[in-house]
Amino acid sequence: MKIILPDTMPLAPELPEGWEAVTVDARAEIPAEHHDAAALVVWGPSRRHLASAARDLQDLRLIQSLSAGIDAIEAAGFGDQVRIATGAGLHSKTVSEHALALLLALVRRLPEAADAQRRHTWDRALGGVQELHPEGRVTTLIGARVLVWGFGQIGQHLAPILAALGAEVRGVARSAGERAGFPVIAESAIGAELGETDVLINILPATEQTRHAVDADVLAALPDRALLINVGRGDTVDQVALKAALESGGIGGAGLDVTSPEPLPAEDPLWDAPNLIITPHGAGGRPVGADERIARNLAAFVAGQELISPAR
Amino acid sequence: MKIILPDTMPLAPELPEGWEAVTVDARAEIPAEHHDAAALVVWGPSRRHLASAARDLQDLRLIQSLSAGIDAIEAAGFGDQVRIATGAGLHSKTVSEHALALLLALVRRLPEAADAQRRHTWDRALGGVQELHPEGRVTTLIGARVLVWGFGQIGQHLAPILAALGAEVRGVARSAGERAGFPVIAESAIGAELGETDVLINILPATEQTRHAVDADVLAALPDRALLINVGRGDTVDQVALKAALESGGIGGAGLDVTSPEPLPAEDPLWDAPNLIITPHGAGGRPVGADERIARNLAAFVAGQELISPAR
Repeated sequence: MKIILPDTMPLAPELPEGWEAVTVDARAEIPAEHHDAAALVVWGPSRRHLASAARDLQDLRLIQSLSAGIDAIEAAGFGDQVRIATGAGLHSKTVSEHALALLLALVRRLPEAADAQRRHTWDRALGGVQELHPEGRVTTLIGARVLVWGFGQIGQHLAPILAALGAEVRGVARSAGERAGFPVIAESAIGAELGETDVLINILPATEQTRHAVDADVLAALPDRALLINVGRGDTVDQVALKAALESGGIGGAGLDVTSPEPLPAEDPLWDAPNLIITPHGAGGRPVGADERIARNLAAFVAGQELISPAR
Repeated sequence: MKIILPDTMPLAPELPEGWEAVTVDARAEIPAEHHDAAALVVWGPSRRHLASAARDLQDLRLIQSLSAGIDAIEAAGFGDQVRIATGAGLHSKTVSEHALALLLALVRRLPEAADAQRRHTWDRALGGVQELHPEGRVTTLIGARVLVWGFGQIGQHLAPILAALGAEVRGVARSAGERAGFPVIAESAIGAELGETDVLINILPATEQTRHAVDADVLAALPDRALLINVGRGDTVDQVALKAALESGGIGGAGLDVTSPEPLPAEDPLWDAPNLIITPHGAGGRPVGADERIARNLAAFVAGQELISPAR
């Protein structure tokens, strides 16, 4: 039996007995000699690659995506005989790290320090004897009230790290309760919480329901000092409302790794909003533990057992 | 009995029975009506304030500093009857947070993202499909080998947070062993470790022994990809050697919260070194848990028990 690996990252999963792995160009059609493959690993594929897989791999029974989102795979039109596993969880560590980098840069005022550095200025407002919780500004995560909206694997990985830094962390999800040891409030109840929120971390996926979840009303409900981080999807934030809130001082700052659209066009006014850090969708993009996930799901597939993160 | 509190931060410690607290200007001489004080809390004092305390407070028996370093207090010349407790530990959380902010900004290439943002450019080199460990660059703490040189309370607070982010953390101290669950190597053995180090975090105090601890030899021994963070004291790094290493690509980047001298003069060439973030000694500057420390040490003093962090 044959499993096709993409050339977009180094992979060397352990395989069940009788299986062989071949590596192909993930941007091109699949070569005819590999049309007998029973399994396919997908990472950074072109549309053409996926279309070829859906059309040419008649024996295909398993797709292991290394992305959490599988919209492109679904759109390629694989038959019902093909089981699909998402890469959910493979990006928890990297995306958490990036969210923390954006948040701490805002909290510790690194953009202002960079401005002062360019001017060769030792800015006394940024150092020396300081208040722990100055009025109108979040300058530390110690005691900060953090909401993580979209409390899946990434949020649950990030939450204990924020807690170790002294933050009071709560998740926001469709239903209230407790997950991974953290209190979770229901999305429907978020309005009552926003006024006491220092940091709102958005890790929402793009769905019809989440479009502009962070809109003018949400931004207005946050305190002026509040910081917004988005490492989910760009479409979940109303960028026009965000720019207005940053310009009016309605919120204290924002860090976005995702925008709508991507790439953000050069003429988009969002680039110049004050107290805003934009990174070009670099939070994830490098699955961690891919070999182990492929090996485990292929073994489960062979044994007829349940897959990790099955999409169907 | 009377304890004098400084006006440089809000304080309201619980006091033993029979004690009263008065708050005075920490930049001025101590008013005559408080020359009967038996205890003094020191935070952000002027030299004049300390000189007045040493001269005028004839009944003084206890000084609680809120700084970890007590050079200025020692220099003021208090008599042997005065016990002094340092503020060691009160800055672990804030300094750890700042060290992490500097480190993650370098790892996640936020200065380059800011340059691209100013140019309204979606820099594809900073996002999308990436390698987890690209040659010659540290782009994540996952699997990163981190040395924390100066493994006291701050280092021991920071280490588990770095570990939670996926780093392999070791301390460096005068003697080898294990502290707070982390392996510690001896300073004398650091040479053999530097070549495999991704991140060197300097939390050294300023002493005769630590002057230029990070010198040209240490910088040369680090890999080209290595990142240096200094949240200790500026004098522990040879800044001329550091600038040369940054310019030649001998190390990958540095984040300094401390310099020599401070403030760093506008004409100092260090300001413009590449891949360097300078913040103006803002890591600490806001003791966390000061009330509790004052209350506990005052109670211990009254009861004739051991102080926390006694200097003498």
